[in-house]
Order: sequence, then structure tokens, then C-alpha cells
Amino acid sequence: MIEVGVVGGTGYTGVELLRLLAAHPEVSLRSITSRGEAGRPVADLFPNLRGHVALSFVDPGEADWNGCDLVFFATPNGTAMKMVPDLVARGVRVVDLAADFRLRDAAVWEQWYGEPHACPEILADAVYGLPELFREDIRKARVVANPGCYPTAVQLGFLPLLEAGIVDPAQLVADAKSGVSGAGRKAAVGTLLAEASESMKAYAVPGHRHLPEIRQGLANVSGRDIGLTFVPHLTPMIRGIHATLYARLSDAAAEVDLQQLFEDRYADEPFVDVLPSGSHPETRSVRGANLCRLAVHRPQGGDTVVVLSVIDNLVKGAAGQAVQNMNIMFGLDERAGLESVALLP
Amino acid sequence: MIEVGVVGGTGYTGVELLRLLAAHPEVSLRSITSRGEAGRPVADLFPNLRGHVALSFVDPGEADWNGCDLVFFATPNGTAMKMVPDLVARGVRVVDLAADFRLRDAAVWEQWYGEPHACPEILADAVYGLPELFREDIRKARVVANPGCYPTAVQLGFLPLLEAGIVDPAQLVADAKSGVSGAGRKAAVGTLLAEASESMKAYAVPGHRHLPEIRQGLANVSGRDIGLTFVPHLTPMIRGIHATLYARLSDAAAEVDLQQLFEDRYADEPFVDVLPSGSHPETRSVRGANLCRLAVHRPQGGDTVVVLSVIDNLVKGAAGQAVQNMNIMFGLDERAGLESVALLP
Amino acid sequence: MIEVGVVGGTGYTGVELLRLLAAHPEVSLRSITSRGEAGRPVADLFPNLRGHVALSFVDPGEADWNGCDLVFFATPNGTAMKMVPDLVARGVRVVDLAADFRLRDAAVWEQWYGEPHACPEILADAVYGLPELFREDIRKARVVANPGCYPTAVQLGFLPLLEAGIVDPAQLVADAKSGVSGAGRKAAVGTLLAEASESMKAYAVPGHRHLPEIRQGLANVSGRDIGLTFVPHLTPMIRGIHATLYARLSDAAAEVDLQQLFEDRYADEPFVDVLPSGSHPETRSVRGANLCRLAVHRPQGGDTVVVLSVIDNLVKGAAGQAVQNMNIMFGLDERAGLESVALLP
Amino acid sequence: MIEVGVVGGTGYTGVELLRLLAAHPEVSLRSITSRGEAGRPVADLFPNLRGHVALSFVDPGEADWNGCDLVFFATPNGTAMKMVPDLVARGVRVVDLAADFRLRDAAVWEQWYGEPHACPEILADAVYGLPELFREDIRKARVVANPGCYPTAVQLGFLPLLEAGIVDPAQLVADAKSGVSGAGRKAAVGTLLAEASESMKAYAVPGHRHLPEIRQGLANVSGRDIGLTFVPHLTPMIRGIHATLYARLSDAAAEVDLQQLFEDRYADEPFVDVLPSGSHPETRSVRGANLCRLAVHRPQGGDTVVVLSVIDNLVKGAAGQAVQNMNIMFGLDERAGLESVALLP
Repeated sequence: MIEVGVVGGTGYTGVELLRLLAAHPEVSLRSITSRGEAGRPVADLFPNLRGHVALSFVDPGEADWNGCDLVFFATPNGTAMKMVPDLVARGVRVVDLAADFRLRDAAVWEQWYGEPHACPEILADAVYGLPELFREDIRKARVVANPGCYPTAVQLGFLPLLEAGIVDPAQLVADAKSGVSGAGRKAAVGTLLAEASESMKAYAVPGHRHLPEIRQGLANVSGRDIGLTFVPHLTPMIRGIHATLYARLSDAAAEVDLQQLFEDRYADEPFVDVLPSGSHPETRSVRGANLCRLAVHRPQGGDTVVVLSVIDNLVKGAAGQAVQNMNIMFGLDERAGLESVALLP
Repeated sequence: MIEVGVVGGTGYTGVELLRLLAAHPEVSLRSITSRGEAGRPVADLFPNLRGHVALSFVDPGEADWNGCDLVFFATPNGTAMKMVPDLVARGVRVVDLAADFRLRDAAVWEQWYGEPHACPEILADAVYGLPELFREDIRKARVVANPGCYPTAVQLGFLPLLEAGIVDPAQLVADAKSGVSGAGRKAAVGTLLAEASESMKAYAVPGHRHLPEIRQGLANVSGRDIGLTFVPHLTPMIRGIHATLYARLSDAAAEVDLQQLFEDRYADEPFVDVLPSGSHPETRSVRGANLCRLAVHRPQGGDTVVVLSVIDNLVKGAAGQAVQNMNIMFGLDERAGLESVALLP
Repeated sequence: MIEVGVVGGTGYTGVELLRLLAAHPEVSLRSITSRGEAGRPVADLFPNLRGHVALSFVDPGEADWNGCDLVFFATPNGTAMKMVPDLVARGVRVVDLAADFRLRDAAVWEQWYGEPHACPEILADAVYGLPELFREDIRKARVVANPGCYPTAVQLGFLPLLEAGIVDPAQLVADAKSGVSGAGRKAAVGTLLAEASESMKAYAVPGHRHLPEIRQGLANVSGRDIGLTFVPHLTPMIRGIHATLYARLSDAAAEVDLQQLFEDRYADEPFVDVLPSGSHPETRSVRGANLCRLAVHRPQGGDTVVVLSVIDNLVKGAAGQAVQNMNIMFGLDERAGLESVALLP
Repeated sequence: MIEVGVVGGTGYTGVELLRLLAAHPEVSLRSITSRGEAGRPVADLFPNLRGHVALSFVDPGEADWNGCDLVFFATPNGTAMKMVPDLVARGVRVVDLAADFRLRDAAVWEQWYGEPHACPEILADAVYGLPELFREDIRKARVVANPGCYPTAVQLGFLPLLEAGIVDPAQLVADAKSGVSGAGRKAAVGTLLAEASESMKAYAVPGHRHLPEIRQGLANVSGRDIGLTFVPHLTPMIRGIHATLYARLSDAAAEVDLQQLFEDRYADEPFVDVLPSGSHPETRSVRGANLCRLAVHRPQGGDTVVVLSVIDNLVKGAAGQAVQNMNIMFGLDERAGLESVALLP
């Protein structure tokens, strides 16, 4: 059994992580912290966990991480980087579900997150936890930066095209739609049901923090600079991301069977599902499941390729991918604890 | 392994049954029939099952039930009763998720379902599959009548009060609210998102088919005639039933601690959870889970008791309870395949 | 033209009041205050008002109410009672959409709202603004207490039965379901879309502030003490209240045609619509409209009468009724500014 | 008063048209037909119209259009073209809310709608009813082809850019999201609440019927061939379209202030609202209102312009625009009957 701790489990990625860990056959959940909810039974805050998680939240100052093999951070951005050096020094491995270790360049991190990075030396050592790209590095990583939700959906959709070098990396468009759980479990007017239901809007068009993360990932694959227009939208549902991706095919694409390209690229991936030609994936087909479903189209045989990519933002976009990373880090079956069927309807 | 067949798996109870059976450690799914979808891969109709169920629908006429230990019927009312006699004759056990075997009295059945019952002799032998009342009978049953969704939520809420004889059985009110999946997966204007979202309404106030089923169950427990006003409502959500139950406490209630009564009654039940005093259960706390959560209130210490009862209509109200019945019938751990955590948020 | 001011227009009753006033042919909107949003254009906070309301919020301390014929309070409970005496002294009439003047008894008010009433002498003089009961008093009132949303739906449903003396006033049940806009436009976790969507729950079963208000109104009509069990529910929609009302018919009911009773009672009411026998009103049929639609049932000819009552909680349950009261107070056509058709779908 | 008839008023554009016409000060509604609902009161089918529309549906064969100044067609595609020649011959003017007269080229129409056009000579004479482009032609038109919902949102967003010649017309992307009312009021599994709620998907990526309509409109403005990738999405809300538009700025854009360009283009348009720089319009800000709200962005100062365009698909995308066209055709104030404020929340 892997001894696991969770820092900051009161948000949506937290409860989802607990849901998955509670059912994981190889995990023993030792401790979970929260400053604001210390002393409160976890199942009191999240009634779905009643009967499944018997722990109460403990104050971060009183948590004992010795004896933990792995600590997950499900904290706001900027928290993990202050605690991780100490954990690493003690030999505890870390998966951070926030953004602290996602950007390779500490200067870029500071620019988008508004404060200096607290441990650039660990940042340099951290591994970006997208298993479809970095599985081998994750295996031995001390600190894994779990990817953002949008970056997961967008990168998995563009990857085969950029690896094959058949689209213009300077003219990418990612139009992404997210359920409101992506905004987190915090009191806010904008995500009240009475505000966000029966409506849709784009947000952060001038610049969203996931933009540099996606750009970094795609540039790494492409080997060239990326020109990406990324527009996130808030949609009236709880879970789910639908990324609609547009790219210009280059002359190199002439010989390529796009459907085959995608199927080959992900043939051995347990959590990426390329749908048959002509498909339109629905976000509900992955609700609660650690899965990215993809479809690739070339409308009217033109020079624009359209990729449809859906994930559950809380699972493959957060907690599920974190568990997948844990499985890889500890040499478990990568599917362990992640095989539940999506809830439909 | 139990060899299982499913008749009519194209509705919501069908897909939910397949979701649960696909993850059940002791079940081998042999065959699933559909007249309309014969030849089509199940996962094509229900994309969440892609990668989990490899079967295609077969025509009912071509299904081979020999070799099946158990057949589930997830068919419209009136279908199972025509096929069950033959199965029973062959020694195949049956769980019917429709209403064909729920009412003990064939005349009452005919009155509410509009046609004569096709096999009254088997009806007489069938067991009503509410494990909290009939676990021992279910164990040896050849045919189990899986309860309706409303009847499950309402009966589990009233049971402790009627068994204790502390409420007036002539003056019961059950105000029940259901998600629209209860109306089934059939093309209909009334349950379109554009019709049923952002709205609420009562329906079938003059008389709903679940009324005689509930009345029969409560009369059986109470030993007296039941006066029940049952008002179902359609609410703008996919899954979930919230039954709000009202009863008049009799003088016999004076000495009774209602909270203790409920906790004692369900202390050994794996799928009924009595919440702490003062609680208000939410339907999402059981979404996807085979669980009934209950709370009992006595507002202002008056003579009306209010019970709040929530289930997922497709799980404890249908497919989950059917699997629970299967587990009991075949001597498995009653929890097998039914321990997943509710999906929240 | 009536010169109108609004105190506290940043909540949902505020924006709805502004929507109605902006379209009212006899109203000139002079001023609208908000402590938190002073200086901000109203249409910046509420984008639907762009092009319709050109005012900016002003600080309450800087508002000039002289010259106003009427001031609406769309403030939290406890605010109006501190400002109203001064306005009344200046001859400005008031409609309070909060609860400050709804309960006749200052002691009861203090018990439910947790502080002494600030102006019991004005409370004694205030008129309860349910036009279907107090139209003549409203006409000359200086201060009108606009009824709560639940109290409007529940009282209009029970009224004909209690006036006719054909039900037992000691055994009333009101099971009410509300959209989340009833919880107001304030940052809160419980009404986030990710929390309140796809779920249902009862709340405040031990006692809700609208209970004494309803009891007071019904006792007034009945001339007897009221035994009422009132259970409000939070439902996953923005607008709408559906009250399902249950009462025991007394022997006096034997001769009474319930349908006729309701139709006669409301024959001259412009904003109460009794549906044909056998109907089930939907909340969407009154979305955005100042209307209560009612249906009356006697299931299986038993001794329980069921009344279904729907309103839009922000219109007939708040801002629309406030405008209706204004129309009555100033001798306008009672329908002025209130004739728009409900938005469906 | 204009004497108006409606053919086929049982769908969502039909009920919305009736809602607007019922409140229109210059319209007398004479007759409304439906084959399936003949004899049924309109308010029986659409309960929001109770008290506002007293007519019953009449059979199309029995409708008397003589005496009508204008007939609206709210029928399925392919119906109007068979009836319009006769009406035109009698001097009755027509607004068709379906697609029969939208494509100038009868061959293209046949290609996308699968049957020959029934009256190409009238098609040649019909005017495309986008007032922002063809107001003068609409004024004298006998037959107005009311634009599709997506085409309205997309064209109004791209217009200023194409008219100014500052984007590459060969590389346009329109990513559009629609509420499910766009799919119409017909019994279908795919748009059930239980299917379409809590989910999102793209559809018709290989080719949607609105593509040639948009292409025709934009080519007309641009004077050049259009390369457009158009991806519609189904989103879990009733009303609203959000079109997110992407175009590559050409060198000619260097001198242009995009915000000013949009504001100038629509300065005199009563139903197009250009939001302040940096805005993100929400679909709810136009719910029930005949309005297109636009915002224009140039993320990170790059060479991609992003336009956000929102409408209510049933109002500015259908019935509202039809009434606007009627107002223009009959020399009324263009705003008549169209000034109601959007319903928010």
C-alpha cells in the first residue's frame, strides 16, 4: 500500500481526488489538511464521501507527513512551492495539482502568477505530468506538475499534428468550453447558478494563465515557436471540457491519413480514445472517467483540420491524471483505481 | 461467475445496469437484446460504455438464454410477463426492473396497466425486491419484482414509522420530486431540455401507477389500510429523487425518539444511511450510488413528522437495487459491484 | 409620471424591479442607491439594462429623496426600518420588498429576525401588500410591506379554501420548491452552479422565516389558529416557485365544487389565473410575468385537497407585486407595466 | 393596424413570434395555422400565452389569408416555397422564418436541402432580411427571407472586418455555440434534458446548412470568395447563441482601431450593441431581447482578431428579426414591439 497525504482537500479537485483515492486498491489515505476546516469530518463537507472516508481535516501545521510516500497538493496556486522543498528533503514524493511547477521558466511563472517562484531549483527538476508525453520521466520524478485542465485537452488534441509536422504552428486556434467546476469551489457571484446557468460567455480573451502552459507544451513538441489563440468559455454545466481545435494543414499533410495518424499515436494509451471517423464526442461520455476522447475532421476536404477533444476537467484534467501519475511513479498498473465507467445519463 | 443476460437494454435503466454489471467482479455479461437496435454495438448507443462493453445488441428472437443464470428485464411494462414463464420453466432466474410483478393482485395490475396480467401464477410466486423488507425471500426467489423508483424512496422513508405504529396510516402525504431520466429515454416533447429545464411541475396528481405499489407496500407493513396522497413532480435535473414525507404522529409517538428509531431500523442495512439529526440530504450525495439517505424532522415539536428521503432513481431506484437483488439471490456479498462513491460535484 | 427611487438595487429583486420600472409608462426613475457600487453605472452591473437604464448607483448618504413620490426598498432585512421613518415624515410613500414590515407583531419579528424592530409605530400602520386581500388598504397606505415569495404562492393557494371554511386549518402542509434566485445575489458556496445544479434538497425544515408570515396571513383569513407544516426546497433552476399545498377537507366541503370556488374567488383578479380542472401548472408558464397560476385537485375523490400554485419568485413573488402595489397606491391601471408575456421556452 | 397571419405556429420560433406579436402595438393577429393542432386553442399548447392570445389553430386548408397584409411562415424548410407564390399573387407580403428563400442560387439550395426549389422566380426576387445590410431592399420587398440564427450572429460579427477589408477572407473560423431550442420543438432523443443537459458537443462538423448561407452573405460583403470553417456546438441551455469568430488581420489592419471600427459601423443600428473594449458578452444579456451584442479583441496584440457575438437565437436569430423586418416593410418605427429588456437572471 502507498501511504498518501493530501494538502488542501476542500476544493473540487480535492473531493474528486478523495473519491478516487477512496476506491483505489493500493492506497492508504493517511492525512488530509485544511486550514479553514480543521477538525471537521471530511464527509461532513462532502456528503458523497460519507461511509467512504472516515478522516477529519487536520490543520496544516499539525500534519505529520513522515511515513507518507506521496503527498498530493490540491491547493491554490502559490502554496505548494512553499512546502514542497521540505517534503522533498524528507524523501516524500509530490504531485502538485496546482500550477506551481508547470512552467519551466521561473520568469514566465512570475509574469503570469504575479510573485517570484519560491523554489526555482525544484522547479528545474519537476516533471510535467502528461503521461502521453513524459511517462518515463514521471516514473522517477520527485515532483510531478499535474497539467491544467485546458492544457490537457488542448495538448492531447494538437500533439499528433505537431509531432507529424503537418500543420502551421504559427496559426493555431483553441476554442475551449469548460463547466463551472473549473472555477473552483469558492464563494463568488459569477459562478452562482442564477448567474452562470442558462448562459454562456467567453472570458480572459486577452490572456489566460493556461496559455503559456499550452504554448510551452506545444513548442516542446513542435520544436518551433507557437502562435496560439486560446479562448476559454464558461458553460452552464458542472463538469467537462470541450476543446475545439483548428489548425492549417501544410503541404506536408497531403499524404497523411489524419484518422490513422491519431489512432496510431494513441494506440497504446490507456486513457486516450480516438473515436471513429466522423464522430462528435460529448463531454458526458467521459463524466467521472479518466479519459480524453478525440475526433479529427477535415471539413469539406479543405486545408483546415478540426480536432474535437473532450475530458472531465476534474478527472483527466485534474485528480484522475494525478492518480495516473501516482500509478506510474510507484510502478503500479497505470489503470489502477481509474477504470470506472463514465456516468451517463 | 454468474452468467447474465439483459432483455431490452436501450433505456436509461438499461445503460445504468450495463455500467454496474461491466464493473461487477462476479458477473459475466453474455447477451443483451433490443428489437430496434439489433446488430448495433452497445457502446455505439452509449458512448460511456466504449472500452467497457464489447457486445452488440441481438434481436430478442435470436437470443439464447440457456446458460444464463439470471436474466434482467429492462423493458417497458407488459413485456417481461410474456417472456418470463418460459425462462422460469428453463430454470433461469429473473429480475424484472419494470412493473409486471410488483402488484400482488392481478386485478389491481390490470386496472392500472390496462391489460390482463399474462402469468398470474408466476405473479403469485414473485418476490418484491426491496431487500430492507424481503431479503430472505429474495434469496430463494425465482422472479424478483424490482421496486419502482418512487416506491423505493417513499417506502424506505415511511417504514420505521409504520412498523413502530406511531403515525396515522390514513393521513400520509408523499410529495416526490424526480429528475427527468425517470421519464425514460424516449423521444417526447415534454422532456426536451427546452421544455423541462428551468421549470418545475407536478404531474399525475389524480393518480400515478406508483400509488398502488406504495400503498400495497405500506399496508403490508402497517397491517392497516393506507390513506396516501402521492404527488410526483418533474424537476430540471437528470438523476435523483427527493421524497418529502409527511405523517401525523399518534399518541403512541410520545415516548419515541424518532432519530433513534430510524438509526436502529437501518443499522444493519448497507444501502440505507440515516443522517444525523437536523440534516437535509441532497440528491447529488447519492448520484450514481446505490444508496438511500434519510433524515427525520419534527418541526417545532409539533405533531407532524417530516422525513426527507433521497435516492438516485436509476441506481437504488432501479439498476443498483436490481444488482443488489442479484447479489442476494446468488449468495454474493450484497455490496459487490455497488460500492462506488457518488459523483460530486 | 411618478417619481421613483430605489434603495439597494444590486440584488435580484433590484434588477428585476429596474427591468419592470424601465418599461413602465408612468414611472420616472430618479435615483438608485448602493453602498458597495456607488458610482458604477447600473448597466455595468446588469448588462440586460444596457440601453434601458442610464443611471449610476449613488451612495445612500448622497441620495436626495425629496421629489420622490415613492421609494422602493430592495435591501437586506433590517435596513428599511431604519430609514423609513424619515421618509414617511417627509411624505414619501414606501414599498419595502424585504421583511421589515410584514409581521404585525414586533415581538414575533424580533424572534425570527434577531433584533428589535426599529419603528414599531410605523409597523403598526403598514399594510401587507397582497392586493388579492388588501387592495383597498394598499390604496391609501404610506408603507406597504411587499409579501415574501413563498408567502405569496402559499397564501393565494390556500385562501379560497380557508375563506370558505372547508378545510381543517390545524393540518395544513405546504411543500414549496424554489429556484435559487430566491437565495439572492450574494457570493455563497451553496448556490454555486456546481453545487446547486443537478441536485435538490429541502432546507430550513425546523423553521423558515416565511413560516410566521404565512401563518399570520392564513390565521387572519381563517379566523382560527393555523397548524402549518412548511418545507421549502432548493431546486436547480433560476426562477420560479412551485407550492404544492395539502389540506384535509371537512364535512362542510361536501357541497362545494372546488374548481368553481377557485374560479369565483379570483374571477376579478388580474394576476391570478385559475387553470381548468385537471391542470398541472408549470413554473415556466409565469417566467418573467406577474402572475400566479393555480390548479386544484381532489385525488381519487378523497378527503385531501391538493392545490398547485406557481409564481415567478422575482415577479409576483417580489418586484412585480411591488409594482402592482405602486399602481394601486397611485391610482394607475393595476396592469400598467405588468402585461408582458412569460418567456417560454 | 397590420393584419397578420402565421403559418405553422407550433414550434419555438412560432411561440416566440406569437409572444412578440401579442405585445405589438400595431399588429392585429388574424389567423394561425397548424395541421396537427387544428382546433386547439393556442394558449393550450403554449401556456405562457394564456390570457394574451385567444385564437385557436386552424387547418392550413381552411385559413383565409385574404385581408392579411403579411403572413409569417414559421414552418419546416420546404413548406413556404410551395405556398408563397399564391400569396404573392394575391398581394400578401411574406416573411419566411425558414430557409426557403435564403440562398440566392436555386442549385445550391437544392444541394443542401435535398429537393428542387419550388419557385425559383420568387427566390430571385426575395430579399435577405438582415436589416443591417439590406434595410432599403426590405422596405419594398414582397418576400423577405429571415436569416438563420447562426448566420445572424456570425455575419454581424464579421461584417465590419470584411467591409473594411482588413482580414483574410480565406481563413475565417466561426466557432458557434447554441442553446437546444435551436433544434426545434420536436420529439427527439438527442435533445432530451437527460441527454443534452450537463454535456456539450460539436455537431455537423463536416457541413451544416447554415454554412452556405453564411458564406453567401460574407462573400457578398467581401467581394471575394470566403474560406470559412464553421463548427456549431450544442450547449446545455435553452436559448442563446455565442459565436466566437477568428480572423487573420492583414497588413491593411495596421492603421485601424478595431473598437472604433465596430462602434462606427453599428452606431445607428437599434439592435446591435458594441460593448466597451475588453468586454465579454453573455448570452443571458440578450435573453428574450432583439439584440446582438458584440465585443472585439486582439489577444496579445497579435495578428488574430477575435469577435464575440451573442444573440437570443429565437429573437434576433428568428422571431424578433422577423418582426423587425415587418416593421421596416410597413414603415413602422423599427423598434415597435421590440423594446423589452432581456430577462436576467
